[in-house]
Order: sequence, then structure tokens, then C-alpha cells
Amino acid sequence: MTSVLPFARSAREAAPSSAAIDALTDALAAQLAATAIARDRAGGHAAHERQLIRDSGLLSLTVPRELGGMGHGWATFYRVLRRLAEADSALAHVFGFHHLQLASILLYGNEEQRERLQRDTIEQGVFWGNALNPRDTRLVARPADGGGWVLDGIKSFASGSVGSDRLTLSAVLADSGELLIGALRTGASGITVQADWDAFGQRQTDSGNVRFDKVFLPQADVLRAPGAAVTPRSALRALLAQMILVSLYLGIARGAFDAGKRYTREQSRPWPASGVAAATDDPFVQHRYGELWLHVRAAQALADEAALRLDSAMQQLDTFTFEQRADLAIAVAEAKVLAHRAALEVSSQMFELTGASATSARHGLDRFWRNARVHTLHDPVDYKLRDIGRYRLSDTWPEPSSYS
Amino acid sequence: MTSVLPFARSAREAAPSSAAIDALTDALAAQLAATAIARDRAGGHAAHERQLIRDSGLLSLTVPRELGGMGHGWATFYRVLRRLAEADSALAHVFGFHHLQLASILLYGNEEQRERLQRDTIEQGVFWGNALNPRDTRLVARPADGGGWVLDGIKSFASGSVGSDRLTLSAVLADSGELLIGALRTGASGITVQADWDAFGQRQTDSGNVRFDKVFLPQADVLRAPGAAVTPRSALRALLAQMILVSLYLGIARGAFDAGKRYTREQSRPWPASGVAAATDDPFVQHRYGELWLHVRAAQALADEAALRLDSAMQQLDTFTFEQRADLAIAVAEAKVLAHRAALEVSSQMFELTGASATSARHGLDRFWRNARVHTLHDPVDYKLRDIGRYRLSDTWPEPSSYS
Amino acid sequence: MTSVLPFARSAREAAPSSAAIDALTDALAAQLAATAIARDRAGGHAAHERQLIRDSGLLSLTVPRELGGMGHGWATFYRVLRRLAEADSALAHVFGFHHLQLASILLYGNEEQRERLQRDTIEQGVFWGNALNPRDTRLVARPADGGGWVLDGIKSFASGSVGSDRLTLSAVLADSGELLIGALRTGASGITVQADWDAFGQRQTDSGNVRFDKVFLPQADVLRAPGAAVTPRSALRALLAQMILVSLYLGIARGAFDAGKRYTREQSRPWPASGVAAATDDPFVQHRYGELWLHVRAAQALADEAALRLDSAMQQLDTFTFEQRADLAIAVAEAKVLAHRAALEVSSQMFELTGASATSARHGLDRFWRNARVHTLHDPVDYKLRDIGRYRLSDTWPEPSSYS
Amino acid sequence: MTSVLPFARSAREAAPSSAAIDALTDALAAQLAATAIARDRAGGHAAHERQLIRDSGLLSLTVPRELGGMGHGWATFYRVLRRLAEADSALAHVFGFHHLQLASILLYGNEEQRERLQRDTIEQGVFWGNALNPRDTRLVARPADGGGWVLDGIKSFASGSVGSDRLTLSAVLADSGELLIGALRTGASGITVQADWDAFGQRQTDSGNVRFDKVFLPQADVLRAPGAAVTPRSALRALLAQMILVSLYLGIARGAFDAGKRYTREQSRPWPASGVAAATDDPFVQHRYGELWLHVRAAQALADEAALRLDSAMQQLDTFTFEQRADLAIAVAEAKVLAHRAALEVSSQMFELTGASATSARHGLDRFWRNARVHTLHDPVDYKLRDIGRYRLSDTWPEPSSYS
Repeated sequence: MTSVLPFARSAREAAPSSAAIDALTDALAAQLAATAIARDRAGGHAAHERQLIRDSGLLSLTVPRELGGMGHGWATFYRVLRRLAEADSALAHVFGFHHLQLASILLYGNEEQRERLQRDTIEQGVFWGNALNPRDTRLVARPADGGGWVLDGIKSFASGSVGSDRLTLSAVLADSGELLIGALRTGASGITVQADWDAFGQRQTDSGNVRFDKVFLPQADVLRAPGAAVTPRSALRALLAQMILVSLYLGIARGAFDAGKRYTREQSRPWPASGVAAATDDPFVQHRYGELWLHVRAAQALADEAALRLDSAMQQLDTFTFEQRADLAIAVAEAKVLAHRAALEVSSQMFELTGASATSARHGLDRFWRNARVHTLHDPVDYKLRDIGRYRLSDTWPEPSSYS
Repeated sequence: MTSVLPFARSAREAAPSSAAIDALTDALAAQLAATAIARDRAGGHAAHERQLIRDSGLLSLTVPRELGGMGHGWATFYRVLRRLAEADSALAHVFGFHHLQLASILLYGNEEQRERLQRDTIEQGVFWGNALNPRDTRLVARPADGGGWVLDGIKSFASGSVGSDRLTLSAVLADSGELLIGALRTGASGITVQADWDAFGQRQTDSGNVRFDKVFLPQADVLRAPGAAVTPRSALRALLAQMILVSLYLGIARGAFDAGKRYTREQSRPWPASGVAAATDDPFVQHRYGELWLHVRAAQALADEAALRLDSAMQQLDTFTFEQRADLAIAVAEAKVLAHRAALEVSSQMFELTGASATSARHGLDRFWRNARVHTLHDPVDYKLRDIGRYRLSDTWPEPSSYS
Repeated sequence: MTSVLPFARSAREAAPSSAAIDALTDALAAQLAATAIARDRAGGHAAHERQLIRDSGLLSLTVPRELGGMGHGWATFYRVLRRLAEADSALAHVFGFHHLQLASILLYGNEEQRERLQRDTIEQGVFWGNALNPRDTRLVARPADGGGWVLDGIKSFASGSVGSDRLTLSAVLADSGELLIGALRTGASGITVQADWDAFGQRQTDSGNVRFDKVFLPQADVLRAPGAAVTPRSALRALLAQMILVSLYLGIARGAFDAGKRYTREQSRPWPASGVAAATDDPFVQHRYGELWLHVRAAQALADEAALRLDSAMQQLDTFTFEQRADLAIAVAEAKVLAHRAALEVSSQMFELTGASATSARHGLDRFWRNARVHTLHDPVDYKLRDIGRYRLSDTWPEPSSYS
Repeated sequence: MTSVLPFARSAREAAPSSAAIDALTDALAAQLAATAIARDRAGGHAAHERQLIRDSGLLSLTVPRELGGMGHGWATFYRVLRRLAEADSALAHVFGFHHLQLASILLYGNEEQRERLQRDTIEQGVFWGNALNPRDTRLVARPADGGGWVLDGIKSFASGSVGSDRLTLSAVLADSGELLIGALRTGASGITVQADWDAFGQRQTDSGNVRFDKVFLPQADVLRAPGAAVTPRSALRALLAQMILVSLYLGIARGAFDAGKRYTREQSRPWPASGVAAATDDPFVQHRYGELWLHVRAAQALADEAALRLDSAMQQLDTFTFEQRADLAIAVAEAKVLAHRAALEVSSQMFELTGASATSARHGLDRFWRNARVHTLHDPVDYKLRDIGRYRLSDTWPEPSSYS
């Protein structure tokens, strides 16, 4: 059993400064980086590293100070996330999805739930996972006798589920097909988390299947009632989620860029026909690094802007409108397309600049492409491009959905 | 003769607010747009429109308030420039180069020159042109008897020279080949401005040849003495110039995007095989607009950032270092590569989205590509990419030059 | 009036060899090239150059020897067409569309029409134009008293109409909307050819509007009866037409490549930062020429293959099936997408390799992009890509249409 | 021990027809495909599958019939190679390099060696590997007392060395640095083949290090004497080798395309926002398949052409000139750049079209990218592009080298 240190300790102190957060992040990133290649090879559940994340206190990063958290905003969160993803995009994903579930509570839950579940998170040191995959409708909810619901079925792509303490979940009503969202202890009776995630990338995201067998969901833990209308507030969750992907893609892109650069500087030999003494002096190598860097640079600029806007939206939830949401959704989509491409292009093309010897498995440099490739399939980039073009051409808003 | 209204009138009033500048700019842009297609077709010198620029007062935009100017910073200038370029990138170029010559005075000149020449600019309503092309070394300076210099030769690509009141110029010393920079009245004895610019784009930039026949340059008007060492301050000029190009490219890209969009919305017919009722509903059309927009969007984000940094550097000239300059040069180069591509891609690909009827000469939609194509050849994009890659790979600074 | 030399002279001799055709073509191309820049600038109708085409005898290239023509196949025709397009893609277009109308007669007409109209072509030296634009349905046919039809309305994009001797045309029936295709003398009563083509490229293709005012079309000159079923044979015409576009795009791409190369070799100066003595030694210049060449090279390989297959299909018209047509349509579409891109990419990017001085209007180098840009809008490249992908993915045939 | 069936059996029969070769190839490809995913995961030496290759008889494909081989030309060989690479690009590589060593004997060896070594190949069922890496100069040759040479050192990237019967090798002379090429039994005293290849792709190519410890190379087995002049004949080897890479890249590209297509057809779900009932009906999916196919298609067209030209050169070795070689080298380089890109683009982008579930390790679909990525690093694509551009721009021949 991993020891669970409640995060509440941090609540007794002043909230850490931005610089302190960065220092915590760098330290955690260094710990993750030290074993990232080996763990990518091994796959499976990274219990020890999840404990390192717990120990860092960063699971409380976005929880308000009055509830015992660090009380930092979402722009800070995304900066931390991107930095962790440079070192290990799988564990960063698990970390990001923990905060996404906290956001779900914030956006969907009522006041009592928000306070109770966030406070629980701090006091019990909760690591959240999810069973929310909106395209998987096999989890069915039926009214329980005496109130609440009974859940039966399965949810796939349940990131962070293995080793989690609690789960958010979505289920469809047996009769109406309407969607319900709730929160449960992972150890609740009838829940079986299957450690069966076997993708070729993002291998330690614990994103397998979760089975529900006559699981009871009390009414008090229903965050979003069946048939609840979509509001600008609730529709923000998809944007926070998309922005997590943006940050992970960017972290992969930057991690790959830096790893490639290090290899070229330290190990690559100049190509004979180049006539130069060092690979770093080859004009084609320099030119390509320029191209790759521009992928990272442009995506980062749009991502920084979108993160700031999301942060600001989260501070004005009560006045946030659908129109503002549409424009913000497009800003996030713009960052996402560029980050998607940056991650794929840099992680694949970096090898043109390192040479063949960099493909030795001991360097583990292919993990960047594998991680990018798996994760960028979350939802199709073509529909993002369509949404962007349609908005710029005709002012048509993207439909609020789990993906846009 | 065009009437010259001295700009000094504006000095008697409070400096216009940022919003007032935007209003002035919009009004001027609308005036230029009204005749842009016809004037692109006609080519030659746009005397009337240059007068509109004079009348707007915006030639004093970057001149300090204490010298009678509007006293706005360089970030504002680049915003104005980009906006004008959306309407007419040739006249915007002339406008931009006027301010570049003012910056040359500021960066190269001594205190007396800075005050005198800026004050002259305001009081006499001076429109500056240039004869500074650094790759053209045919203009030769020889010491004059009794001090000062005698200039003989020719300068090509002298943007804004036709119709200018004064010129900055560079010449090489006959014996040492060292470079001298000075300022002269365009009407000075021996100067012949040739209205012989005949490129297929940017047709009204008045960028032809200027001949110098025994022209006397007083020592007091030498801004940069032969053999003067490059300083971080003097080396800023190239970055201001590059950023003018960035702004013009971006203006062209945005102007083309908006023109294409307007055509698709108002005139394009849906393609029969699309099965949709309006061209704006065609998924491929939407997707491509998404792609084109991302070109504009990314370039704009990097350009905005670089403009702010340039503005800030101009406010700290005395402490500006070569190291800061290197990093800023790369930021400008990054924006330039993206703006270069945005201008070319949008201006060429917009037609895929309008259909064949948009190629009628009466719409003048090809002018965006022609303007982009001509102007983006100022200096090769490949050496920008090399500089960027080399810096990111090896921390090598771009050599301070007229282009980097 | 241009003198019309009947082509029949050539029928008295043996058909020219392939080498002789190439020599004729080279001579004609050289004549067209000599004035191409000036005529692009002037626009309008190129009466003299159309006469040069007549005089070359190549208007009889695809007419069978037994009817007095040169009797060459379609692969030869496309080779000739591409070569002419390298020199002048507008006149090449007019030449290509003459043969397309001959193909229309061959594919749509009955035996009597085929013999009569081809023989007329030879004996009377007919230059064919077209009024067939399938998307323009404003030309309406009504039954004439006593048989035949009366035509009223207008046809746009009627390439080669000005200065033509005869026209093929399509009209829709007033009541049923069914399509009828016929052939008429351009000078027939009621036809007004408007020399109003004003696109910014392909300026001398005489592609303006043709008006029909109570024009009588005898039944004997109806090539395709209203409501006639589409056959593999009749559906070949669209492929021949598409392949004409491929050849023109390729000619433009190759013409641009060669013009750029000549400029770089003879006039470009090396960039100072390159450290090389000649622009041709700059590694980035070499690299980009490699990229541009690959655009041309790949398109040419697919085009050659498609032309051979079309030629072979034209020799087996009686056994040609819809299935064969589908596969051939895809082969043509593949060549078309690559030729489309080659023309646009080379004609725009060649300037990166020549430098700014190449944009002087006297070199006329922008005409390649303008010609490519206008002509590649004939039908959208995205639907070609869709057709190709759909066929390779699901074996779905492209719908036989005027474009696919 | 693997049993070695001498290939000579096939010499007793008539040479197999082209169709028979294709049938043999298809059967072998099917055998390899059956275990390709599992063996990619396992890595290491594929003894069983190398035996299947031996058993197929195809190791004698390019050996002349008079020496007991199948006597097929190089165009056939490349077709077979590409087909095998679609199924398993690692084993195809080993197969291809066997024939490359046979070509080395043919091109470098004298008449006696050519006959003896080819005959040995047939009679003893020799599987050739190589220790020829030209960039690794650590293998040193010193004159042996009494003639011949003594070899000491190491060779890296020795493809096919593990499990081979014989090796070709290159060594540098201790004093002059001149290059010597020879052939030896893999089991010769002092040779240690290290099964230490650990790249993340092409995992079963047995491309590790070979150590030489006082290994004796008789003079009779020196294929290329130190200091031997480069001839058009000997310089053909590099082109044959490059064309092997082209064929492998193409095989990977095509294999990936077909695997992606199969997944989309059979398993992908339509994206909700697409509004279509099957993923194959999504216009964006169709469009992207069109793009990916064009990568394959264009590369294939150039590769087919280059293979035919190589085949023809191999039949006219005595009259082959450096000028012909230069043009052929460019043709191969053109095919190589397109095949390089096709392999990388298709193997990475195919996932956009399959969706996230296709990344499950059990499908093994990432192996295409890993194989492409590792193998395309053989020599830098940028120098191919430079060679192509330089040749097309200035008629400069690529320097005959091991790579160009």
C-alpha cells in the first residue's frame, strides 16, 4: 500500500509563491525524468512515481487556500503541467486529469459538493481518476430504490483510474439515454479497475477499463443531474480538458526538442559531405532546428494566451457567457492544432538531426513520438480545423460538447 | 506641388490617445483602401495618397511630444502600420520607412542631430525616404575641401524616395570602403530621384534608383561616421527595420484573409459535389480557412510579442546589451518567418476558397500575392531559419548586420 | 482578317514522325515565347499567335490520317501541349481546347458527324472554341418548328471562343432541364462572342462570354441528344479535359522552374551571409531547387503514365468499361493534384531563389504564378483528393461528371 | 543450427517465370507477416524466418542461371524486396543486403571471384551479411607475412551479420588510410559477431557490431584493392544500395497504408461531429487518405523508373559512363527522397484515420513508423535534396561515394 499523506499540511502554511511552485515542479520533474525511459519500457502502473506526485503537494495546486489547497490559478497549473510533461508526459497526464476532476466538481457540483469534495481531497490526500469517456455509453444508470442510482457496465479510456482514490464518472440513463455525472470512491463496492491499458505510448497513464457491477451512487454524489441544461459554466470543462491536452502535447514537443538538441550537441557526428567540423555547424541541421523550434514557439505563444484566458474565465464563472465561451473555445482549438503538430513533427523529425545512432533503445528517444502519437488521437484535429475555419469564416460557434 | 502642412499643429494639443490613434488609422486605411485596386493597377507615384498620410498627422507618431510629435511608442507604430498594410501595403511601406528614418536619426545621430532633425520633421512636415540599401555599394563618398563629403554614384531600392522631402543615405568611402550614413534634403543639388521602380508588386513604394552627382554632405549631417563601431544601440535599427517588414507581411496576410472571406461569403457558389447549399458550409472550405487562419494567428502572436519587446528596448537604449539584442533579434526573426509564410500562403491559397470567378481583374485579389511576393524577398528566409536554429541549438548570436 | 490555310495540305504528305512533331512544336513554342511576356501584359486576343498555331499544322495533330490529319495519338498531343505551355500557357490552352472539341465530336458524335466535322476541320482549317461550361446553365434550348433547336442565353468561361471558327456548346432544355451538346459555326446568326475575359492570369485564352440570341441549331449538328445516357465512351471526355489541365499546369511548372534556374545562374547574387561566391553554390538555394524539382518530377511521372493510359483508352473505345474509366479517372486525378501543386509551388517559390531584382516587371516572371493560380481554379483540388482517397479506401468510383 | 539447403536445386530446373517469382514472394511475405508483430516486439535474431527466406530459394534470385541462380534482373529483385518489406521490413532488409553483397562481388570482384563466390553461394546456400559501414573506420588492415592481410578492429551497423554465412567487409590500411574490400566466412577465426543491435525499429536486421581479432584475409578474397580507382562500374554499388533503401521505405509506406486502411474500414467508428454513419464516409478521412496515397503513389512511380534504369545499367556494365551514373544517381535520389517521406508521413499520419483504439500494442501499428524512422536515417535526406537541386540547377554531378 502506498502511504497517503494528506495534503492538508500545506494549508497550515502560507500558500507557496509562484517561484516556489516552479521549484517544486522542477524537483518533481527531475525525479520523474530520472526513470522515464525505463518506465516507458516497462509500462504498467507507476505506483512509486504517483507517490512522488502526492508527496510534492502539487495535487492541491488548484484547490482554494480556504479549503486547504495551494490556491493557484489555472495558468499556473498549465505551466506546471507542461513542465512535468517535458519530463514524463504519462505521469503528467495522470496529474493533469486529477485536477480536471477537481474542476469537474467545481463546475458541475453544488456548493455543498464543491466544499465537501475539495476538502476531502485535501484532508484525505485524494488522487482523482476518471471514468468519464463520453463516447463510451456502456455504463448505464438505473434509479435505486430509496433514491440514488445503480450503475452497471464498463468505461474505457479511464485515465488515472488504477491507483486512484476516487473517480468521477458519466453514465447514461437506461430509459432516456440522458447523461449523469457523479463521483465515487474507487474502492466502492462493485467497482473493478482493470490495469489493462496497453497503448504503445503514454504507457503509464493507467487509462484502461473500469467495470461497474451494481455500484450504488448516492444522490448526494451526483454532480450533474440527468437532463441538466448545458450552461456556459458547465461547458467550460471541455475547454479545461482540451487545454490539458495542449499542455501535454507542448511538453512532449519541448521535451523532444531539448533531447534532440542535446544529442546533436553531444553525440552527433558531422556528415562527411557537409565539410564542417561539428554537426552543430551544418547549415541544414541549423535550418531544420529553426523549423522545429518555430513549431514549438508558435504553439507555446497561442497556448500561453489561451491559458491566461481560461484562468480569467474561471475567475468570472458567474458572468461567463456562451459567446465568450465560443471565442475561448476557438482560442484553445487554435493552440491545440499547433501543439498537436509541434508534438508530432518535432518528435519524428528530431531524428534527422541526431543521426542513426540515436535510435538505440537505450536512449529511449522514440518515446516522444509514441507518446505524442497516442495522445493526439484524443479527438480528431480535422474537426478542430473545421471549427476554427467555420468560426473565422461565418462566426459560427463550435457546438459545446465534450470535445469542443 | 502637394501642400505641406507642418505636423507641429499637433504639438499644441495633448497627444492623441491610443483610441484616437486607432481612429485616425482606420480613417486613413479606409481612404487608402478606396483606391488601392486602381492604384495597384496604375503603379507609379501616389502623390495624393501620400498627402493623405501627411494630413493624417501620423508621420509624427513616433516623434517625442516635447519635440512636437505624438510621442507614441513603437508597439503602437507597428499596430498602425499593420492596419494600414491591410488596406494598402505599398503606401504602408512608405509610411513605415518614414518612421524608420526617424529611428535612424534617433539611433545613429548625436543629441543635436536628434533634436534638430526631429524638430525639422515636425515644423516643416518632412516626409522621409531612404537611400540606404546596404547591398548597393555604388554610392561613394570623398572628403570635401573644407570638411564634409562629396557623394557620387547611385543607390537602388530607395523606398519612398520619390516625393520625399529628405533622405537618409549610406555611402562607402572611396579609399577605405568604410560606411558613412547621413541625411540630406531630397532637393539638394546633384540629387536625382528616378521614378523607375517597376516591380510587379508593392508598386507604389517609390523604391527606384537615386543618383548622386557631386552632392555635398555637410559634416553636421553625418549621422554615423565612417568606421564607427557597432553598438547595441546602433544595431537596433536592423531589428526595427525587420519588424516593419513583419508588420507589412502580416497586414498583407490579414488583408488577403479578409478579402477571401468576404468573397466566399458573398459571391462563391458551392461546389456541386459538396452537396451543401452554401460555399461557407463546405467542410473542405471551412477546414482550409482554419489552416489559413492559423498562419495569420501564429504570426500575429509572435509579432505582437516582438513589437512589445522592441518598444521596451527603445525605452532603455542606454542599458541595452548585445546579449539582449541577440535574443530580441531571434524573436523578430521568428515572427518574420511566420509572417513571411502567412503572407504568401494566404494570398495564394485564398483562391482555392473563392473559386475561379474571383480572378477577374476587377476584384484585384491577386495584388496580395504580388505584394507579398515582392516584399518577402527583402532578405532570404532561409538565413532567418538558420539564425533561429543556430541560436536555439548552440546559443550562437546572429551577427549584427543590416538584415539580422 | 487572318488568313486561313486549310490543314489539308498535310494530308497530301505522309504523317509527320514523332521527331518531326517535336520539331514543329519547338519551333512554335519558340515563336510564342518570344512575345509571351509582352502579350501577357497586354492581355486580349492574340490573333497573330493563333495564326502561328494554324500555320504550324498542329491543329490537325489528333485528326486521323484518313481524314487528312496528322493522325497522332493523345500521348503525343499531351506532350506537345505541355511543351507549348512551358512557353505560353494561355495560347497552349486555346490549342488544347481546340483538340478537346475534336475529341467531343469523336466521343459524342455519330459516324457521319465524326467524319464530316473532322474533314471540315482539315479542309476549312477550322479552329475550334467552346461554349460548354457545365456549371453555367443559362443557355436554354427550345424545339424549333420543323426540327432542330433554338438557343437563347449566355455561356461564360468560353475558352478559345474569340477568333474561333466553330464552337461546341451545351444547352439545357427549357422544360426538362436535360442537357444537349451541339456544334455550330461561330459566325452563325445570333451568336455574339464577347471579348470580355479579364482574369489576372491566362489572359489570352479568349475565355469570355458568348451570347446566343435565337440561334438555330440544326438536328444534324446535335452531338449529344437530350437525355442521352452516360456511357464509358462519352464519360471519357471529362478525363481528356482534365488531362489537358494537367498538361498545362505541368507546362507552367516546368516553364517557371527553367526561368527561375536561368535567373539564378545568370543574374542572382550570392547572399552575403552564405559565404559562397555564386548563388548557385548556396546550399539553401541548391536544397530548395531540389524541393521544387521534385514537385515537377513527381507530377510529370504520374502525368506521363496517365497520358499513355488515356491514349490507350482512346484506341479501345468500343470495349472501354466504367470500371476501367474509374481507375483511369483516379490516375488522372492523381496527376492533376500533383501538377496543381507543382505549378503553384514552383511559380511562387522560385522567387526565393532569384532574389528581389527578379521581380522587375520587365522579366515578367510573375506570369507563371498568375497563370497557374487562375487555371488551377477550374475545379477544386479538394474534391480530387477526396475522390482519390475514397477510391483507395473503399474502392468507390468517382461519379462520372464534367469534372471527375 | 539452421539447416542449410543449397540453392543449387533451382539450377537444375528452368528459371522461374516472373509470375512464379511473384507467387514465391507472396508466399514468403505471408509467412513473414504472420509473426511480424510478435517478432517486432521480441527483437533479436529471427533464425526461423531467415530459414524461411533460405527455403524460398529467393536468395539466388539475382545469381545468373549459368551459375545456378534464378537469373532475374534487378528490377525484379526490387519488386520482390518491396513486397517483402510491406510484410516485414526488417527481414526484407536482411534479404536485400544479401543481394547487395552479391552485387558487390559482381561489381568489385575479378572474373574468378565472381564465378567462385556466386557459385559458392548457390552450392553452399550462402546467406551474406555485411561489415562494410563506410563511416566506421575502426577496422584496420595490415599486410600479412606471405601475402594477404590481417584485420583488427570493429565494424558497426553490420546488417545481416548475425546468422550469416559470409561477410563482405571494408577496412582501412594502417599506413595509408586507403580502403580495401574483401569477403570472408563469418566463421573465420577471429571474427565475433555481436548480436547487440538495439534500435527501436528494424529490430530484426541483425545490424550490430562485428569484431575482428587478427583475422586473416587471403589476397584472393580481396575484392577491391587498396587505392583502386573508382570506376563507373564500382560506383554503381552505392546506387544499388540506395535503391534497396528506396524499396524498403516504399514497402513500409505501402504496408502502413494498407494496415491503416484495413483498420479504418473494419474497426474505426465515425466521429460524432461528422454526421456520417461510417468512418469511411467522413470527407476528412477520405481527403487524408487521398493525401497519404499520393505520397505512396509518387514515390512508387519514381522508384519503378529508377529500378528499370538500374537494371539496364547492370546489363551494360562495360559501357557505363560516369555521366550516365550521375544522371542515374539523381534518379535514385529523387525516388529516395519521396520514399523517405512517404514512409514517415504515412506511418505517422495513418493514426489520424484510425482513431485512438488503433494504438493498442496488440495491433502493432507503431512498428511502421519505428521501422521507417530508424531506416531513413541511413544517410541524411538533406544532402540528397542538395544533390538533386545542384544537378538540376548547375548540372553538377553528385560525388561518387558510398551514399551518393
